[in-house]
Amino acid sequence: MFLAKIYITLKSTVNDPQGQTVHGGLKTLGYDSVESVRMGKYLEVKIQADERSGAEAQISEMCHKLLSNPVIEDFHFDLEELS
Amino acid sequence: MFLAKIYITLKSTVNDPQGQTVHGGLKTLGYDSVESVRMGKYLEVKIQADERSGAEAQISEMCHKLLSNPVIEDFHFDLEELS
Repeated sequence: MFLAKIYITLKSTVNDPQGQTVHGGLKTLGYDSVESVRMGKYLEVKIQADERSGAEAQISEMCHKLLSNPVIEDFHFDLEELS
Repeated sequence: MFLAKIYITLKSTVNDPQGQTVHGGLKTLGYDSVESVRMGKYLEVKIQADERSGAEAQISEMCHKLLSNPVIEDFHFDLEELS
């Protein structure tokens, strides 16, 4: 069993209205030292696999097919083995 | 200048319909080896601060006040100094 921690972020050239809204909220609360906010997604996926390479290949495929939008998003993930 | 990478996750006892939906989608695509999916949020916040401890304190406060809902969510963050 493996646990994949998947991070999905908007590409840096893509506008991020959700991040801008959070930035505005932080400014309203008085956090003027904040320079920028970018929102992303974080997923924890548990997957049954015999080998790390198999789990890696499956997770990468899932990210391409369903979890991220490769046109506007990047992803990376860490894989740890669960005992 | 510091970059905070903030991870916000639902507490393990809290139901996660979004994660369940993604899990269902993955099963429909044929990924039967997936055991569970939990959705969370990921934020990258750039903040001006002279010292690491000051930046840490501010980010932690922001997470409590605005970015996370402490009733149902946990958060943690990594802080890196930008040159």
